[in-house]
Amino acid sequence: MTAHLRLGIDLGGTNARAALVDEASGKVVASCKVRHEERTPLAVARTVAEVARQAAAQAGVDLQALPGVGVGVAGQCLGSSGLVLNAPNLGWRDVPFGTLLEAELRRPVRIANDLSAAAWGERAFGAARGVDDAALVFVGSGVGAGLILGGRLHEGGHGVAGELGHIKVAPRGATPRRCGCGEWGCLEAYAGGMNLAARVREELSDGRAAAALAAAGDAASISASSVEAAYEGGDPYARELWAEIGELLGTAVANLCTLVNPSRIVLGGGVLLGCPNLLRIVRAHLADKTLRAARQGLGVELAWLGDDAGVVGAALLPQRAADPNSR
Amino acid sequence: MTAHLRLGIDLGGTNARAALVDEASGKVVASCKVRHEERTPLAVARTVAEVARQAAAQAGVDLQALPGVGVGVAGQCLGSSGLVLNAPNLGWRDVPFGTLLEAELRRPVRIANDLSAAAWGERAFGAARGVDDAALVFVGSGVGAGLILGGRLHEGGHGVAGELGHIKVAPRGATPRRCGCGEWGCLEAYAGGMNLAARVREELSDGRAAAALAAAGDAASISASSVEAAYEGGDPYARELWAEIGELLGTAVANLCTLVNPSRIVLGGGVLLGCPNLLRIVRAHLADKTLRAARQGLGVELAWLGDDAGVVGAALLPQRAADPNSR
Repeated sequence: MTAHLRLGIDLGGTNARAALVDEASGKVVASCKVRHEERTPLAVARTVAEVARQAAAQAGVDLQALPGVGVGVAGQCLGSSGLVLNAPNLGWRDVPFGTLLEAELRRPVRIANDLSAAAWGERAFGAARGVDDAALVFVGSGVGAGLILGGRLHEGGHGVAGELGHIKVAPRGATPRRCGCGEWGCLEAYAGGMNLAARVREELSDGRAAAALAAAGDAASISASSVEAAYEGGDPYARELWAEIGELLGTAVANLCTLVNPSRIVLGGGVLLGCPNLLRIVRAHLADKTLRAARQGLGVELAWLGDDAGVVGAALLPQRAADPNSR
Repeated sequence: MTAHLRLGIDLGGTNARAALVDEASGKVVASCKVRHEERTPLAVARTVAEVARQAAAQAGVDLQALPGVGVGVAGQCLGSSGLVLNAPNLGWRDVPFGTLLEAELRRPVRIANDLSAAAWGERAFGAARGVDDAALVFVGSGVGAGLILGGRLHEGGHGVAGELGHIKVAPRGATPRRCGCGEWGCLEAYAGGMNLAARVREELSDGRAAAALAAAGDAASISASSVEAAYEGGDPYARELWAEIGELLGTAVANLCTLVNPSRIVLGGGVLLGCPNLLRIVRAHLADKTLRAARQGLGVELAWLGDDAGVVGAALLPQRAADPNSR
């Protein structure tokens, strides 16, 4: 019996992963991952269809018997129409990926932003299980959020809700840092792992960052973990940097809570989960800066599902999130 | 025929207003307003019931024939349970006002935050008509927002969503201003009309604010309008103040748009609507700082319904917003 299995796909800039997920338990029962060599939309659709077929075969599932297929895409998506508006890591703009994949798989396809899919997964089987108002806040190489509001996936009027990494946080009068999105002063320009590492390398080369960090290895291998290690060793530069980044992130999440009033915040991503000292500072600012009334009943949890959140949430998208009346 | 009329109540710190609203057109067909002399919850419930009966009598409506009554309350509310969590202007904490008013009126009562009610009114018959994802941003004596997300009133896990005035905006390192809520560095501490006036009076008395403002009248009558008038006259203090407040407000609304991705922002409240130069600066920052993808399809409008938004939205609450599946 495979009628309880659903297919979810996580489409990143480098890899596509397809998984068969038990819709009753959230368990991944089969999974295939492939690197896409070519990034044209049609080539990626074919690669994704192939990896989906492999995963289905592995689990003994007939793809054509599935009600639909869900895909979390690392980019801004208009989920309802299957359009990927902007996926910088794939180099895509306004790509009708849902339609392309439907043609390959001959099944209905529901796409969503990857963090929306992950939030939906954490809500179904993870750290936000059963919570109607929850936000997944992810700090890895980038920064973003997925929002569950009133029991539904909230994708916004243009499908791009949850872009926490692109709220503007540069203090008035300061020169804002440039973000990968091309805009200035975005939270991600300060707190995203890629930009953080680039800044530390900059500040090492002009002598502002301390020797403790340089000693950690060659400049090219500098990452958030190097800062965390230097912090542990008492390095003043690392302490000042974590104080700054922790306040920016903690204040941003606090303001999200004050504005949207979720009952649960789920913290995930390699930078947050891999840097306990930074996480502690973020949590302290979150507790301190959220409006008192919005703090009541607010639970803060670490993500449970890790890399599986995306495929688990994606697998459930066609049945659940797409229905505006689903609870 | 009065079957198309609904009763909405706007409960502020000083006055209660009841209005009979045509549910097809949103027109107010009868309205009564009364000042509540005593602010105990029971006294206010009786006053509100009395003004509701007067308005109903004026319109020839039998209160007992109404499906329910909606109330917008100037405070944080747990709408689903009728509880007012915190209403500073009434001096209330955890008051079961819905239950008290139901006992007086012998009709089901649905309460909501006043800006949530106003947003619901603007969505039904005003500047956000027919829009599924919209935010009403209000800057008057206080600062707040009402959120319509996915076609529903979004009140949040604890009923306090939309507290835009209490997001923290003090730049790192600066001494934050204290807000009326007791916390520090809230947007309202800078941009709310009451706090703004208090700050100008402070800065006049210690010589930082310019003579142009003092000349506008005695210190006690200083308001946002005095700053606007001084700005018009080229006063450098007023120009610097509007640059600062406009950037804080515009960035806060831009960040709301980046995070929640509404299709419509409705700007209202005496400070925004009464100070065109400030409004212009706010709109410029809003356009500049909203993530590009979230700006697409985003309409920015001034509120249409003015003081009627609250009663109109409240009148429609029992039938519409309370139903989680309503669209």
